[in-house]
Formats: sequence, C-alpha cells, structure tokens
Amino acid sequence: MSGRVRLSPEQRREQLLALGARWISDRPFGELSVDAIAEQAGVSKGLLYHYFGGKQEYLHAVLQRMADDLFEATAPVDSPDLAFRLRVSLENYVRWVRAHRTGYLSFMQISRGGTNPEVTAIFEQGRHNLTNRIFESSSSAELAELGIIDSPASRLFARAWSAMVEDALMSWLDDPAGLTEEQLIETFTVALGGILALVPRA
Amino acid sequence: MSGRVRLSPEQRREQLLALGARWISDRPFGELSVDAIAEQAGVSKGLLYHYFGGKQEYLHAVLQRMADDLFEATAPVDSPDLAFRLRVSLENYVRWVRAHRTGYLSFMQISRGGTNPEVTAIFEQGRHNLTNRIFESSSSAELAELGIIDSPASRLFARAWSAMVEDALMSWLDDPAGLTEEQLIETFTVALGGILALVPRA
Repeated sequence: MSGRVRLSPEQRREQLLALGARWISDRPFGELSVDAIAEQAGVSKGLLYHYFGGKQEYLHAVLQRMADDLFEATAPVDSPDLAFRLRVSLENYVRWVRAHRTGYLSFMQISRGGTNPEVTAIFEQGRHNLTNRIFESSSSAELAELGIIDSPASRLFARAWSAMVEDALMSWLDDPAGLTEEQLIETFTVALGGILALVPRA
Repeated sequence: MSGRVRLSPEQRREQLLALGARWISDRPFGELSVDAIAEQAGVSKGLLYHYFGGKQEYLHAVLQRMADDLFEATAPVDSPDLAFRLRVSLENYVRWVRAHRTGYLSFMQISRGGTNPEVTAIFEQGRHNLTNRIFESSSSAELAELGIIDSPASRLFARAWSAMVEDALMSWLDDPAGLTEEQLIETFTVALGGILALVPRA
C-alpha cells in the first residue's frame, strides 16, 4: 500500500502545474526538469505527458500558469480611487517579480528572443491583459480624472509604459541607484498618468 | 588584369563592414551570409575571416557598426535648446529604425533573448551610450530647466524610458493606432522630461 493520496485528474493536473510553477520561480526556465517534477508528484513522466500532451505542452502550460498567477496577484483592489488601485497593483507586481525573479527573467528573455513563438505569445498576451485591465477596470470618469482617455493610442502607450516598468524594475533589482522600493513604485504610478495624459486625442 | 580596385587593409575592412551593415538593415541577422558579402566585395571568405578573426567576430563587428551608426545618426544637433535637440535626435532615431527595421528588430531580439552574451553586450552598451549622452551633452542648468538632475536614479529611468520608446515605436510600426509620426515623437520627447522630473532626488 502506498501512502500516496489519490487525486482526481483535475487535481493531478493542478498539482503538476503548481509544482512546475514553483520550480521555475527561482530557476531559469531551461532547467525545468520534467523528471524531477514527475518524481515530486509521485507519478511517471508518461502520466505527466498524458495530462498535458507532451513536454513542450507542459512547459507552455507552466508558463501560462505563471502569467495567470501574476495577473491574479496584481488584481485591482476594491477602492474608488484609481491612483490607489494602480499603486497597490504595482506594489504587488514588484513583490511578485521579486519572489519569482529568476524564472520570470528567463520567461521574459525567451519571449523577447523570439525563438519560441508560443512562449512569446503567452508572455505578450499576459502583458496585454495586464495593461488592458487598467482601462477595463476603470470608468471613463475615473480615467478622465487622471487626464486619460481610453483609445488605441493610450493602450499603445500603456503597453510601452509597462516595458519601461519592466526595464526599470530589472535595473533596480541589480542596483537600486539610491531609490527605495516605495519611491520606485511611486514613480511608476505617477509616470503612467503623466505619460497617458500626454497621448494626443484622436 | 582584374578591374577590381586595390584597397588598403583599412579600406577593405571598412568596405566589408559597410556591406555587412547594409545587408542586415533589411534582413534578419541570422540570414547574414558571409559568402555573399565576400562575393560582393570580390574577396575570398578566407580573406574576410583574416580581417576579422572569424565568422562570429565579423558578425559582432557588423552589429557594433550598426550600433555606432545609430549613435552617429542620432547625435545632438547644434542648438542651445535641450528639448529641441532631443526632438531632433528622436526624429533621427525613428527615421533610422524605419530604414533598418528588420535588421534592428532582429539585433534587439537576439540581444534580449540572452543566448549570445556578446550580442547582448553590444546592444546594451549602445543603449547605455544613447541615454548617457542625454546627460553628457547637456549642462546641469539645461537639465534643471526641464526639471531633471543627473543622478544614478535619473539614468536608470532614462534607460527605462528608452525601453518604452523602443516598445512604442515597434508597436507603432505595426499599427500606428491613430498617431502620426510627429505626435509619436512629440510624446516621446515630452515624456522623457516628465518621467525624469518625477524621479526622487537623492
């Protein structure tokens, strides 16, 4: 008799995704070992492949889980103040990236390297979802208070702002350049309103 | 007797770099063919390798040439007005990227993919040089007029701003989202001052 808990297929899938996501949170993505994950879960590699369709599919599902996890971790809090909601989401973003730094950097690098179009698509879609949520979780009146309108040009610059945030955060993690985490987040928050207020109206 | 012009070693090196840079301005970097370049120059592949030390070294020299070319193309014009100088440099940046779009995108992708550390170093150093020049070609008084001080934190955000510019420009080239080139450049220019004015003073 094994002491192993019997899991439903859904629970098993979930367990394998959670193990994969935990594994890559502090390791480069290329080091994800399907053997080690299967062993941790107490299943065969064959069963793991059976659940996901193959190794590549499992790897993509783990990255999708990572993107979903970031999306949830940065969900807008319940507050009528858009600037406050943005600040809390950015605090949670910075906290999440710090906790998943190596894996996230590796995910971003593979995405940007363009060598694996599916990885690029998962990453870019995740980023799109994050910046589109700024508009979709705010009323026009709230946006207008920060000088923002929802337009294709604003969304283009919101995505560009998120590229700025990523770049600044990665630099800051290497060398804080005299900035506290609070100052960094404050600059990100105010910069978003400042940049979007500059975007010409159609 | 060949009709070929006899070049000095320096002229030959220069010719091979210019041919390589022209070749990759509108082709992905991976398609750079040393055979084709050598043939265009009317020299053997062995002689090309002799000048640069090998294929990888030639490829890196071509990318360095591309980075140098961008740096020169965006040099500050002679004007006492910092905002004007920035705007003209950004106009020239956008013009240069449009003219070298495929090659530059490919250079950026390889750099960001992190699979070739030398390519990453050439790209990142080029970007550092571009953003550091903003500070080094301006007096403190000129910077102060735009609300900017020169500090490690300002330089961190200037580099992050350049990541924003790259991202917005690449999106805009795919889909202008209702923005004219002039509006795009105006937004880039004003955003730099706006972001740097937000950066906390040490």
